[in-house]
Amino acid sequence: MSTKENVRPDGVAYYDIVIVGAGPVGLMLSTMLARWGYKIKHVDNRPEPTPTGRADGIQPRSLDLLRNMGLKAAIMDHKPARVYEVAFWDPNCKGIARTGTWASCPSFIDARYPFTTLLHQGLIERVFIADLEKNGVHVQRPWTVHDFQTDPAKDATYPVQVELSQVDGPRTEKIRAKYLFGGEGARSFVRQKLGIPVRYHDPISHVWAVLDGVVDTDFPDIKMKATIHSEHGSIMVIPRENDMVRLYIQLASSSDPDWESKRTATESEVQEMAKKILQPYRITWERVEWFSVYPIGQGIADNYTLDQRVFLGGDACHTHSPKAGQGMNTAFLDAQNLAWKIHAVESGFAKRDLLKTYEPERRKMAQKLLEFDNRYAKLFSQRIPAADEVKAASDNHGTEAEEHDNDFVKMFKESCEFTSGYGVYYEPNVLNWSPDHPAQSSLMLKKATKLSPGHLFINTNVTRVVDANIVHLEQEVPLNGSFRLFVFGGDPKKSRTALCDLANGLVAKNSFYTNHLRQDVSLVSHHEKNNPHSLFFTICTVFATKRSDIEISRDVPGVLARYREHIYADDLHDEKVPAAKAPAHAKTGFGDSQGVVVVRPDGYVGAIVELQEGKGTMEALNEYFGAFCTKGVSDTKTQARL
Amino acid sequence: MSTKENVRPDGVAYYDIVIVGAGPVGLMLSTMLARWGYKIKHVDNRPEPTPTGRADGIQPRSLDLLRNMGLKAAIMDHKPARVYEVAFWDPNCKGIARTGTWASCPSFIDARYPFTTLLHQGLIERVFIADLEKNGVHVQRPWTVHDFQTDPAKDATYPVQVELSQVDGPRTEKIRAKYLFGGEGARSFVRQKLGIPVRYHDPISHVWAVLDGVVDTDFPDIKMKATIHSEHGSIMVIPRENDMVRLYIQLASSSDPDWESKRTATESEVQEMAKKILQPYRITWERVEWFSVYPIGQGIADNYTLDQRVFLGGDACHTHSPKAGQGMNTAFLDAQNLAWKIHAVESGFAKRDLLKTYEPERRKMAQKLLEFDNRYAKLFSQRIPAADEVKAASDNHGTEAEEHDNDFVKMFKESCEFTSGYGVYYEPNVLNWSPDHPAQSSLMLKKATKLSPGHLFINTNVTRVVDANIVHLEQEVPLNGSFRLFVFGGDPKKSRTALCDLANGLVAKNSFYTNHLRQDVSLVSHHEKNNPHSLFFTICTVFATKRSDIEISRDVPGVLARYREHIYADDLHDEKVPAAKAPAHAKTGFGDSQGVVVVRPDGYVGAIVELQEGKGTMEALNEYFGAFCTKGVSDTKTQARL
Repeated sequence: MSTKENVRPDGVAYYDIVIVGAGPVGLMLSTMLARWGYKIKHVDNRPEPTPTGRADGIQPRSLDLLRNMGLKAAIMDHKPARVYEVAFWDPNCKGIARTGTWASCPSFIDARYPFTTLLHQGLIERVFIADLEKNGVHVQRPWTVHDFQTDPAKDATYPVQVELSQVDGPRTEKIRAKYLFGGEGARSFVRQKLGIPVRYHDPISHVWAVLDGVVDTDFPDIKMKATIHSEHGSIMVIPRENDMVRLYIQLASSSDPDWESKRTATESEVQEMAKKILQPYRITWERVEWFSVYPIGQGIADNYTLDQRVFLGGDACHTHSPKAGQGMNTAFLDAQNLAWKIHAVESGFAKRDLLKTYEPERRKMAQKLLEFDNRYAKLFSQRIPAADEVKAASDNHGTEAEEHDNDFVKMFKESCEFTSGYGVYYEPNVLNWSPDHPAQSSLMLKKATKLSPGHLFINTNVTRVVDANIVHLEQEVPLNGSFRLFVFGGDPKKSRTALCDLANGLVAKNSFYTNHLRQDVSLVSHHEKNNPHSLFFTICTVFATKRSDIEISRDVPGVLARYREHIYADDLHDEKVPAAKAPAHAKTGFGDSQGVVVVRPDGYVGAIVELQEGKGTMEALNEYFGAFCTKGVSDTKTQARL
Repeated sequence: MSTKENVRPDGVAYYDIVIVGAGPVGLMLSTMLARWGYKIKHVDNRPEPTPTGRADGIQPRSLDLLRNMGLKAAIMDHKPARVYEVAFWDPNCKGIARTGTWASCPSFIDARYPFTTLLHQGLIERVFIADLEKNGVHVQRPWTVHDFQTDPAKDATYPVQVELSQVDGPRTEKIRAKYLFGGEGARSFVRQKLGIPVRYHDPISHVWAVLDGVVDTDFPDIKMKATIHSEHGSIMVIPRENDMVRLYIQLASSSDPDWESKRTATESEVQEMAKKILQPYRITWERVEWFSVYPIGQGIADNYTLDQRVFLGGDACHTHSPKAGQGMNTAFLDAQNLAWKIHAVESGFAKRDLLKTYEPERRKMAQKLLEFDNRYAKLFSQRIPAADEVKAASDNHGTEAEEHDNDFVKMFKESCEFTSGYGVYYEPNVLNWSPDHPAQSSLMLKKATKLSPGHLFINTNVTRVVDANIVHLEQEVPLNGSFRLFVFGGDPKKSRTALCDLANGLVAKNSFYTNHLRQDVSLVSHHEKNNPHSLFFTICTVFATKRSDIEISRDVPGVLARYREHIYADDLHDEKVPAAKAPAHAKTGFGDSQGVVVVRPDGYVGAIVELQEGKGTMEALNEYFGAFCTKGVSDTKTQARL
């Protein structure tokens, strides 16, 4: 899949991808593709990583993703601030008073890390850069793109010609690549050259001042995220690592589409504003790390790509209010979504059309976030919610009917889902099964308790059978570009035949599994845990019984047993489903029945299939994968040799 | 406290301590003292850290300790194996069969990490070495000690003269030091030169073969800790990092005290033995990392020190059967116990006599471990426990009466406490309060639910008030040499007066607190969290109410409020005490009453004092600290200026 030689006889260097911009979106894309062996040219126009704060909020769900990549520990090593609650302050006779605090990720969200992590963007970038360098990719700085064009007629494999140039010197490079990615932020050259306009969906533009520093204050919520409204203006307080705190102060706003605010303020003017707003509390600055004033509108680019060769992601195609804390997280997900799809196509697994799902999946999500943000702000500006409403919203485990009774409660829950990252989901398409999908088997399910296609897989603890380790099921397969097949086997005594039929079907000639075996399958070590047969699939089998009752050699048939480190007992207590003896089965809805959950390489559910005796389950899976895989599938009984 | 100059005019180098041996005990001691600013000469006679496995089991409790030092993440980064359960195999007609599995750290132990961590000793040593180097200490290799003597008449401050020499060269060094530590293992030169004999309490000596390697096998418990008895002999299986597995095979044993076994075996003979023992399962070796045969007896040195200047620790004063997995953990605790006491004495906080508590605390513990190990092995050799007994032992939350009914259940529980490390405790002395202690206040408590002096503090989650972070209370104060005062304030409305009296008492003239202020107290930054006033104390205040109901400026008086990052709400659910609304209070026994728990710098409870209105609580604390602190205490009302 990777072009080993760099420069060909014609003097032009060939790469799989050119990535412009080494902010969160570019680095995430680069890191993933580098791990999967792609040849990458990565440039950034800054001489070094972000020296100051900038985007620095990592959502609960993004921590899951970073952990799945093995990068979470390095980030947490920097001792970031953690926001568990948000405090609300409003004017009173003395100045301001706290009106309430809310969990930033309440318990109705089944999050592993129910807090927002705040850390200097530069430190986060360096974690990615260190990982890239392990894989031989070095970000070339300060370099920029000055021209590109796509010309498949000239070179069908490397259709993109890119011209790069040194920012502070005379050097230039001419490159041919399979892909070009523009992740250079809101003023993206790549987007401008493609002529893609940005639409401002939010009618309001804002000018913000941001001030990062170390303060001395008696304001009691200085270590919390706090939204403060006063007669003198509004502030948002965000704690940071190393005793720092960020203050966002809104200087001006307008709903005039042609408004170009010249409103600005000096550092000391902003400090004076903050002092007034925070009265009766005092605040002084011991050190200011970063101060900036910038206008921002909430906009989305019309397209993320025009030809599935030149792509945009991150701030290059959507800009947000900093208040929402969405920037870095949305960038991560853009990159992740594109990375695995490029890999699937370039490795010969998926049809090239798969790349057409990137823009609709990610653009729709950006739209939803922005629309939601506007509605939420509007609702909130109407009145301050009462304490009991907040409590109801945070605790509520009630019926949907109850939720409809109160717009605020509904809105609050939706808001938490968005800001935690657990609310991101994708609409039906070739990857996310719906009744319109080509796979028409009656065993395909639209929903299974907490699972739906296009939504995240569940978080749940299980016991690994071979070593009795208590593990997080959703983290057991690393981010390796493979689809994850979770087989929920229920009671092994009852599912025995169905599992045998599935195991036989997987190794049958022309199954989706057999069609995508590794070329080196006969040479793979017996210690290989995740990809013994195929680089595109890892299979996990979960039983609703105690670990000590499972004997792999007896209960797990054929090819399923080869994934011996991915066989689990669903036998732990889970306070989210306290009555369940098998919480993973309870959360997925496979209590008495059994099922197979297909999880995309990025952790979103692709399809949910009932597991039944006979050929039906395999037929359904073959149909599902047949819709986007390069190699046709059939149900022939001939077995592949594994 | 530290001697900055290295070599004095007389040409002799002066150090606070000379540490011989850079195994677990020497490195732990060195790491702690280096962090606290001591001048250390550390030598090891090996040219580099342990190249092979050796001791590699880290107990649950030792992980707590490593985390408290900030070293756990670096160790877990190596992806060690984790043992959650132990499997037992016995002979049957086909060869061997599993008779049961047990949790290695069952749920009745309130462990944060209920597993044993297995990692190459050399990797663990390198984590310590990296930390040492950050603090400017470099282990000098291969160097050894060839002579030493203590001569306080010649130099009262640096009474120990040590002669070191290069192992593979002609160089020697003559050093004067305050202390010498022998952590050179079972054949310790320091111990031999002191003439301290080792007594073998266990009448049986064993010859063990140990084989570390990567195997190909169908034995189902190869990723578990497994004890296998067969007609062909016995094996213990211990999983390791990187798909490795360790096998211990007992080659011979004798109860003759003069027995010196010449029994040995080659690597291939041991592999053949293993193959026979594991029948009907097959096993072959892909790679052997380490093979060794060694005799071992369970012995304890008569003394750990003769003069409180030259100390021994680790294998130099106690040797264990490798089966018990105690070596490294006991070494860590020897070092930790000595380190903080040396610090307390050398920094002028505690009387020199405090060092006399090292030997009795640690030697008694080694004795208990060995005695227990013998009794346990004996009980176990009599019969195989029935499955229901194992279950009862693992689950039992019953009364003590029930436990007495079954020796096996009692023994099993004791065993788990020892092997998890949570069973380590110290007898009453000047540090561990008992009715015989000089502090005779009627407010001193012998026991408070799960707390007793000499035993570990509880593990419990609480909410930090300033930032709403959910934290592990027992980890909130890092291992910084300070005593930790946990004030359990119950309902802040009710404890208000008692807290004020305590706060006033702390800053009164001649209180234990005021007597040990920092010399730079007026220069300390307001961001200092743990030691704003004194390097020897950190105060944590915990209330049995919701975080949102606590207002520090209103509820926390005087000096207690200065520790604003150590004020907590005891408002979380804890499945160990599911009915409790304030689990930390419930576990400590402070439900309706209030109390102060004094925790030693090593995490063991020193004293438990009722918190009452008036002077009583402070008087009790002054008496307790007066028993071992250098500066006398009184209850004068004059306030110190903080």
